[in-house]
Amino acid sequence: MTLTQTLFEALDSVPLIDPHSHINPRSPASETIADLLGYHYYTELAHSAGMPREQIEQPGITPREKVARLFEYLHHIDHSVQWSWFLELSRELLGFDGDRIDKSNWESLYDLALTKMQQAHWEDQVLSKTNVQRIFLTNDFDDPLDDFDTHRYVPCLRTDDLVFHLAMPQTRDRIAKATGIQVGNLQGLHQAIGFLFEHFVKYQVRACAISLPPWFTPKKIAMDDPVAQSAFQRLMCGSELSQSERECISYWVFWRLAEFCDDMKLPFDLMIGVNRKVYPGGVYQGQDLYDSRWSMIQYSELLNAFPNVKFPISVLASVSNQELVDYAWIFPNVIANGHWWYSNTPTFIKHDLRARIDAIPRNKIIGYYSDAYKLEFILPKYKMFKRILANVLAESIVCERGLSESFAIELGTQILRGNVDSIFFNQE
Amino acid sequence: MTLTQTLFEALDSVPLIDPHSHINPRSPASETIADLLGYHYYTELAHSAGMPREQIEQPGITPREKVARLFEYLHHIDHSVQWSWFLELSRELLGFDGDRIDKSNWESLYDLALTKMQQAHWEDQVLSKTNVQRIFLTNDFDDPLDDFDTHRYVPCLRTDDLVFHLAMPQTRDRIAKATGIQVGNLQGLHQAIGFLFEHFVKYQVRACAISLPPWFTPKKIAMDDPVAQSAFQRLMCGSELSQSERECISYWVFWRLAEFCDDMKLPFDLMIGVNRKVYPGGVYQGQDLYDSRWSMIQYSELLNAFPNVKFPISVLASVSNQELVDYAWIFPNVIANGHWWYSNTPTFIKHDLRARIDAIPRNKIIGYYSDAYKLEFILPKYKMFKRILANVLAESIVCERGLSESFAIELGTQILRGNVDSIFFNQE
Amino acid sequence: MTLTQTLFEALDSVPLIDPHSHINPRSPASETIADLLGYHYYTELAHSAGMPREQIEQPGITPREKVARLFEYLHHIDHSVQWSWFLELSRELLGFDGDRIDKSNWESLYDLALTKMQQAHWEDQVLSKTNVQRIFLTNDFDDPLDDFDTHRYVPCLRTDDLVFHLAMPQTRDRIAKATGIQVGNLQGLHQAIGFLFEHFVKYQVRACAISLPPWFTPKKIAMDDPVAQSAFQRLMCGSELSQSERECISYWVFWRLAEFCDDMKLPFDLMIGVNRKVYPGGVYQGQDLYDSRWSMIQYSELLNAFPNVKFPISVLASVSNQELVDYAWIFPNVIANGHWWYSNTPTFIKHDLRARIDAIPRNKIIGYYSDAYKLEFILPKYKMFKRILANVLAESIVCERGLSESFAIELGTQILRGNVDSIFFNQE
Repeated sequence: MTLTQTLFEALDSVPLIDPHSHINPRSPASETIADLLGYHYYTELAHSAGMPREQIEQPGITPREKVARLFEYLHHIDHSVQWSWFLELSRELLGFDGDRIDKSNWESLYDLALTKMQQAHWEDQVLSKTNVQRIFLTNDFDDPLDDFDTHRYVPCLRTDDLVFHLAMPQTRDRIAKATGIQVGNLQGLHQAIGFLFEHFVKYQVRACAISLPPWFTPKKIAMDDPVAQSAFQRLMCGSELSQSERECISYWVFWRLAEFCDDMKLPFDLMIGVNRKVYPGGVYQGQDLYDSRWSMIQYSELLNAFPNVKFPISVLASVSNQELVDYAWIFPNVIANGHWWYSNTPTFIKHDLRARIDAIPRNKIIGYYSDAYKLEFILPKYKMFKRILANVLAESIVCERGLSESFAIELGTQILRGNVDSIFFNQE
Repeated sequence: MTLTQTLFEALDSVPLIDPHSHINPRSPASETIADLLGYHYYTELAHSAGMPREQIEQPGITPREKVARLFEYLHHIDHSVQWSWFLELSRELLGFDGDRIDKSNWESLYDLALTKMQQAHWEDQVLSKTNVQRIFLTNDFDDPLDDFDTHRYVPCLRTDDLVFHLAMPQTRDRIAKATGIQVGNLQGLHQAIGFLFEHFVKYQVRACAISLPPWFTPKKIAMDDPVAQSAFQRLMCGSELSQSERECISYWVFWRLAEFCDDMKLPFDLMIGVNRKVYPGGVYQGQDLYDSRWSMIQYSELLNAFPNVKFPISVLASVSNQELVDYAWIFPNVIANGHWWYSNTPTFIKHDLRARIDAIPRNKIIGYYSDAYKLEFILPKYKMFKRILANVLAESIVCERGLSESFAIELGTQILRGNVDSIFFNQE
Repeated sequence: MTLTQTLFEALDSVPLIDPHSHINPRSPASETIADLLGYHYYTELAHSAGMPREQIEQPGITPREKVARLFEYLHHIDHSVQWSWFLELSRELLGFDGDRIDKSNWESLYDLALTKMQQAHWEDQVLSKTNVQRIFLTNDFDDPLDDFDTHRYVPCLRTDDLVFHLAMPQTRDRIAKATGIQVGNLQGLHQAIGFLFEHFVKYQVRACAISLPPWFTPKKIAMDDPVAQSAFQRLMCGSELSQSERECISYWVFWRLAEFCDDMKLPFDLMIGVNRKVYPGGVYQGQDLYDSRWSMIQYSELLNAFPNVKFPISVLASVSNQELVDYAWIFPNVIANGHWWYSNTPTFIKHDLRARIDAIPRNKIIGYYSDAYKLEFILPKYKMFKRILANVLAESIVCERGLSESFAIELGTQILRGNVDSIFFNQE
């Protein structure tokens, strides 16, 4: 057994807490393979390879028909890391034992999966095989929190709508419904946000989270800032706001969120760098891209203003990784968090992880999160990460720095699990 | 034989089509070594290492004298990948069998080469040893197309002059001469461009191509846009145009090119990122550099507007590679194309290629083109690429993803050759 | 012995000249371990890991108490490359022979070090074990130069204060004191700067150096530029200058420095990319970060204007490395210099060094400098670099390019030492 394999085996036995996902706790596992292949990673890649969106998203087609159609294009991505996730989960969770899954044999896998997924406790089986104990959710501010096990599925308050979509009347209606507060001005908005935080805290929320566009540069805007006040009045009246008015309101709300995180001792996950709807003709959730020209320096005012708030930060592109490493090296409240979306591929994970392990204090590296929509993906995504982590530890910790195998395992375990305990649960 | 070697052997036997070069079809091969060492990669590096430009470019010196002078400096680059191309072609094509070529032995190589190059069918010998079947050219819009074999040398319409140099009277004269149209306004210009496309199509053009500066952000400008009209009138009168007028005309022309590509079903090669004449004191073709601060998002309007045009895209710097990967992942019409110029070195090729193979549909990766000015360079440049491709396939496809050797060979063959067939020749 | 080890052994026997440090020639070596662990790399990382700044910087604590406090946090960085430097110097220079240094055993190391450091000739011992012959300093313009051995400790004129801090009255007082010139206008300032250059040249200065922020874009501003003149008059009166006035003065001074470097044939080290005091709450020297969005193109006017000045250039972030490589490839006066600060970690060194060795003339790569504040750090930092250099040479020169072991050693020796001789001492 090579050193990398030894390290992988040790890391693979560590029970996981997944600190970021999009699991629906009322329907966490899949019912058919269509739930798995409907994941945007597959639909957008099939579309990119040539499949018309209309074929993928035609209303009313059965799950089996959807899968049949996708397999006309999925051979174009059978080499990709995204496909390797599906192959590995088919083997590990569904009992598939072939080499390839393609249009010649998908139907037998479909039926095999159907049998498995209809078993009682399929959810428990998946969790158990994955060795995952707790999974963070992505909750809209008005999600119900009382109809699932918040120990297993940990609430996380997602705040994009509050920062970016207050101009939509339905957002304000949802706030009113969730809080009972008819927001008429910034004071009311502040009160409503406070209500939401308290509500989430009651249900053991462990993080506040948001995804941010490249241009975002948070500034302190005072509670009673007159420009923000008047912009908000105009927004309430349905007036068309200027770009700077919109930004002013976004920054006002964002600063309040940071204040509440400070008050409630809640980590604030920042996922930085995404532009929404760059390709509006794309499939559902397959329309977002980015402009990599932003800098962590845009966050310096925030990071200086809230020294007691922990900011686990994810960046969308690998070219931002060194800034993340270096801001985490200097700022006590910056934590490097996982490998997000377009950077969640082996080439970038390896490069980015090595740089983090070189230079960031070991208590400030959160190795990974699944970002999964369905439980079945947690296993293959984490396996991919653990293989890379084992490889990086073998190369940089054992071979380059001459530290021991047990040192590497201890470090890897902290990166994989320990820091989730200490950062989100204050457990050392 | 290692896995990488096995894969390399398999890939090395694939007959090539080189989808981008600067070969002159009337003089495709070299007559002396001066034609090879006159390649800007060598003159600019010799200059960079200390050789005065005047020594390199002194008018009237013989080829032998030029080579003699260059060898006073070429030892400064004998470790470089660019030099390895010359060494490999000297061995494989010219029969050189030493370890080093330097000022102690260049003259015997010079004479050896002279004999070879004067042989009948030297061109055919080079093509045959290189195993290349067809080579794309870079044709000015007014290049003759009827005096060479367009099956072997595939016309490609290069459009930099149309987009950027209409203000030069000689460009407009060349248009008049090539099309018989005296362009007086945008309507006339449109007609002339249409004439050029039809002319090239008659000669089996397979791509339209352009190199673009970092600031370029194509916008739709309507055929009869009044601002463009009046800017063009002023240009025709020889008035000094403002920056925004120049850009307006460039964008107008560029949009028309995309429309013609759409009409004629022609791929549009975009080579993005170069600033011209950053070092005006440099040798011929050794003056261009770049500003890496640009983003693929500058092309979102274009990519959305022309869903049926295939855009094989090259980027100048490796920091742009992840954006290219991710835009190719999402946009069906974005194709990752080769490793251009300053990124055509092993460190960047390996990093960039791995990231592409991780995540882009396999039918949208064009592995390589030579960019060569003389046929002899196609062999060593492609060999370099094939070694890296074999290594990346061994590491990421076979070792990491656990797929078979034959799978890796099939994938490598598609990247090396198959996608050129399907993208430029519509052959699956 | 593997190829990498063979290469390392050969490189490790090369006597060094360290072309950039912050050594104080009057107190070059450490007196206690507190001098080593007081290095900002450790204090800032301990702070980042959770240690309050006040505990680190409390006035009046003894060196032993400071070290005791730091070890309450240093286990958080025991995996890092920065820590590996301390471990290696403890073994190689102090005689420590354990596996870990932590709060259980630091005190015995402290005492061991104390004995060593109090020995006569500790400085000489360190230099001898490090095999370093000469070390460049970082001298303020008013540093005394007559009280140390300028052969061993080579003066280097650091000019940040002249370019950026003339608005501070103490800077102008220091100029007056150092030069005897009461600067009243730009003519006087020019005279004073000329005096400083002549003074440094008298003491065998070998380089002028400066660190520059990302926004810096040097422009030629004439000696008697009226805007600069009036801005300088306002500065002398203590008026608050506008951003553009401040920049005008900075560019005026910077251009004069380049002119004097040209006159005096002095290399001008540019260290590009740092923003000062991004985290003002940080420990001493642990407050600076950066915005990686800058481009070498900002220096094109400078590089074109001074073809005879050698510019050894360091960049702060690895995303700038390809621009540095490519500008060094094209501009004869651009030299790639070391791996600076946040890029001085193995992941970035390896990636950046490979790219340099691929494509830059071999006489224009200065491999490394220590940037050390205390002599003891030169050994472990250079060892780290030599291991990576040996590895890169093994992989890219011997394995990929098929060149010989002796070729690789010769190349590595030039990168490590020879180019320092030729670039700073004009010795081939």
